[in-house]
Amino acid sequence: MTIVVGFVPTKEGRAALARAAEEARGRHSRLVVVNSHRSTGDAHDDSAREAETEIQQVADGLSGDGVEVEVRRLGRGNEPAEDLIAAAAETDADLIVIGLRRRTPVGKLILGSNAQRILLDAPCAVLAVKG
Amino acid sequence: MTIVVGFVPTKEGRAALARAAEEARGRHSRLVVVNSHRSTGDAHDDSAREAETEIQQVADGLSGDGVEVEVRRLGRGNEPAEDLIAAAAETDADLIVIGLRRRTPVGKLILGSNAQRILLDAPCAVLAVKG
Repeated sequence: MTIVVGFVPTKEGRAALARAAEEARGRHSRLVVVNSHRSTGDAHDDSAREAETEIQQVADGLSGDGVEVEVRRLGRGNEPAEDLIAAAAETDADLIVIGLRRRTPVGKLILGSNAQRILLDAPCAVLAVKG
Repeated sequence: MTIVVGFVPTKEGRAALARAAEEARGRHSRLVVVNSHRSTGDAHDDSAREAETEIQQVADGLSGDGVEVEVRRLGRGNEPAEDLIAAAAETDADLIVIGLRRRTPVGKLILGSNAQRILLDAPCAVLAVKG
């Protein structure tokens, strides 16, 4: 079994990675962490390093528990949804885990376009967790 | 642990119920099946009976495996999203399972309003499976 998770260093991204790690442990699944980014400036480089550090910490913990982890750092200019769906298709994944923002009390009733696209086009089930 | 699943007798509803049953078995969770309906006419009564028969078959199978199943038949005029979210809050659920329609090749990039509402307002993680 393979679980694919999209990670960015935000509250939602962390919630998704933590839940995906938990599911991978519980299901004895392989975990593929997809870290998509589009920009290439200096500010981005800091964010990319932060993301890599966080992913590495989770990966080290999982490896210690005998869970196989693969990290894919993608910056090819795709939308995150495209990267996640492609990774899920390629690895014949059983599950994609994504993080969603919590809606504020006055928040609009609209899901982000990336989340909608993943939910509609994923080749497998999608687990959506709140940040 | 408690898993809440929304069921209607459609391809998506069946996919959601089957996956929720599988998750309940794997996680040794209690399963709460919420069967929302709004209409009260004769056509509806047939549909309601069909739904009850299908739910009962799944419930019997799960009970045989030692999984506790509770079926809630709701027809109070709420949107299905409201019933599901209320059931999840009341049972302190860990997971809601919903079924999504597959998008056709020319299908619009819009999730149904019930699905969006559940994803945004659920008090727990949501697992979305394709019909």
